[in-house]
Amino acid sequence: MLGNFIYHNPTKIYFGVDALANLKEEITGKYQRVLLAYGGGSIKRNGIYDLVISVLRKCKVEIVEFAGIMPNPTYEKVLEGAKLVREKQIDLILAVGGGSTIDCAKAVSLASYHDDAWNRFWVKHEPISQKLIPIASILTMAGTGSEMNGGTVITNTEAMLKKGTGYIELNPQFSILNPEFTYSVPKYQMLSGIFDIMSHIMETYFSADDGDNLSDDLAEAILKNVMRNTKVAIEDPYNYVARSNIMWDATMALNGTLDPGKDGDWEVHAIEHQIGAYYDVAHGMGLAAVSIAYYRQKIPFAVARFKKFAINVFNVDPDKKTDLAVANEGIDALADFIKKSEMCSSLRELGISDESKLKAIASSVSCYPTSYQTLTTDDVYKILKESF
Amino acid sequence: MLGNFIYHNPTKIYFGVDALANLKEEITGKYQRVLLAYGGGSIKRNGIYDLVISVLRKCKVEIVEFAGIMPNPTYEKVLEGAKLVREKQIDLILAVGGGSTIDCAKAVSLASYHDDAWNRFWVKHEPISQKLIPIASILTMAGTGSEMNGGTVITNTEAMLKKGTGYIELNPQFSILNPEFTYSVPKYQMLSGIFDIMSHIMETYFSADDGDNLSDDLAEAILKNVMRNTKVAIEDPYNYVARSNIMWDATMALNGTLDPGKDGDWEVHAIEHQIGAYYDVAHGMGLAAVSIAYYRQKIPFAVARFKKFAINVFNVDPDKKTDLAVANEGIDALADFIKKSEMCSSLRELGISDESKLKAIASSVSCYPTSYQTLTTDDVYKILKESF
Repeated sequence: MLGNFIYHNPTKIYFGVDALANLKEEITGKYQRVLLAYGGGSIKRNGIYDLVISVLRKCKVEIVEFAGIMPNPTYEKVLEGAKLVREKQIDLILAVGGGSTIDCAKAVSLASYHDDAWNRFWVKHEPISQKLIPIASILTMAGTGSEMNGGTVITNTEAMLKKGTGYIELNPQFSILNPEFTYSVPKYQMLSGIFDIMSHIMETYFSADDGDNLSDDLAEAILKNVMRNTKVAIEDPYNYVARSNIMWDATMALNGTLDPGKDGDWEVHAIEHQIGAYYDVAHGMGLAAVSIAYYRQKIPFAVARFKKFAINVFNVDPDKKTDLAVANEGIDALADFIKKSEMCSSLRELGISDESKLKAIASSVSCYPTSYQTLTTDDVYKILKESF
Repeated sequence: MLGNFIYHNPTKIYFGVDALANLKEEITGKYQRVLLAYGGGSIKRNGIYDLVISVLRKCKVEIVEFAGIMPNPTYEKVLEGAKLVREKQIDLILAVGGGSTIDCAKAVSLASYHDDAWNRFWVKHEPISQKLIPIASILTMAGTGSEMNGGTVITNTEAMLKKGTGYIELNPQFSILNPEFTYSVPKYQMLSGIFDIMSHIMETYFSADDGDNLSDDLAEAILKNVMRNTKVAIEDPYNYVARSNIMWDATMALNGTLDPGKDGDWEVHAIEHQIGAYYDVAHGMGLAAVSIAYYRQKIPFAVARFKKFAINVFNVDPDKKTDLAVANEGIDALADFIKKSEMCSSLRELGISDESKLKAIASSVSCYPTSYQTLTTDDVYKILKESF
């Protein structure tokens, strides 16, 4: 059912092979001092850095570099960027990279003129009270959807916590999405991003309300599109049709389109975030590693919903089967897709070699009331054990 | 294929039974003199007028009434509103009604401070050069999608032309969508709005590019949702689940979600607009009356696309059939849906009693290059004859 909701997303998307051509007009005359945020240097190797710099020079802006943003950006790194913003009086943060870089840029914006940002925004989710520096992004990897939302996930290494927060004020002013920029993403990272997309869709889909709701229909459509195009992209990474669909699937999966009428579950993300706080793993692969055990745990509490998923997404034939059997076949098919796509099927495949920290991870996961059932720490531990 | 596109829609939607509660905060302190635009008075009979007025009084704004907007709003009416805007120094136009009222409000905004607006914006599509008055809407009928886009369709009775134009600057600042406000819409008008939704989806779907494209998957999902919920709403007009889905389908069908990678066809709308310029008919019913003949004309030029439609939207079994047969079965199923839902299946059912003006209507329709084939005036005449 579509209850009360607000639907609002002001980010402007420029998509396609010519998308970067819009950068000059978006910047010239509007901004003077740009913080260029990026990661470990892959944009230098694949030429995207040079392309961006050559446009920025034409914009007559001062460019301040903020490099070395890591895959799971740390709060320490955020504070380093915030200091730069204040010192150089930055008026735009331009993130060039994947979700980690964009998330870090948003976090830098939050931390630049707010004291104690971690506690206020990631822990207590307080309202924004000080100036924010606008964000824009040039996306080089499909997955997190950060290019068209206000979310930012940051790891606090001291507290051993990886947490997300979100404010519409942090939505990028504009984002530039050229699918060709994703061609050079290594297969492992591409697949990690893809399961992140799938998880965003499924964690919304597997939540109340379960009545007839357009959001569920759209979720099934995007999920099928991404799985179909993944098969193509694995065989042919330079297939524009596949890479462009996957890139757009990622944006649409987490820009608000699928939220009306849905509570969202997000417990799989909560579990993965704590795996990520203890081990430096690729986010989407972490989600893939625990999802099957998680959903098997959930099936008994929402058989009808998992049956619908099996039939509508994986074309499971329900004839002469119990609802539970159909529901299980759907998750079997998902597990099969993960295996065949060479995503991580277990924590061991993720690179975690022993079970020594699983108890600590389980204890650190926040178990909140989700739609079908509230997990206990024991449940989380069981899921982690089954995922090992 | 997803080529170059811009995706940007800044309108804020408040949806649900409590949506109107947001009006006060959106207006208070931001606007001083509000033009309250509405139609023939149905909002006075169903109580919505009183609800809105009671909120506006609390906002401490001057209210200027602009009533009597007709179903196919005329340019003459637009100029009347524009004069009021200038005289009363209006700073917000609040449309309370369906698509016609919202379209008229946008047109009033365009015409208030631009001379010769008809020629400049509806005929020549010139850029905006003068001040626009911001628009907001409270929607009382699902159909046109005008609540979340910048489009405005106006009838110039003198020129015998009904034409649309669109500017993102005309997007409502916010729109309030309470599905309960649509309960009192008469069945004929509800069905007219529903076929308008379906036509927006189909006129986008039946256009290039035909490659794998998320927009097509989303189109099929919304189309199936609206047809499924129409069946419920016909039986039970007070069914919240059905009415809320239909209302949201309408918004999502024309807010940009389905456009990436698609050219759009819009020839069915072009034909209906000229029927509307000659006869005062319900827009969506006019679309329903000509769509089947239109699509039968198109099938030979895009058999694969119509086959896909038949299978994915109407579950036509393609086994042992030619592609053309499957394609035809899809349009048969659409015709069947129109008939069973008691939408207009012909111009005669639409209330056009003789064929005397069909030649003149056909001549007045602009035939532009659409995705599969450019119609001639003779083709349009043939479609009108077959639809009679």
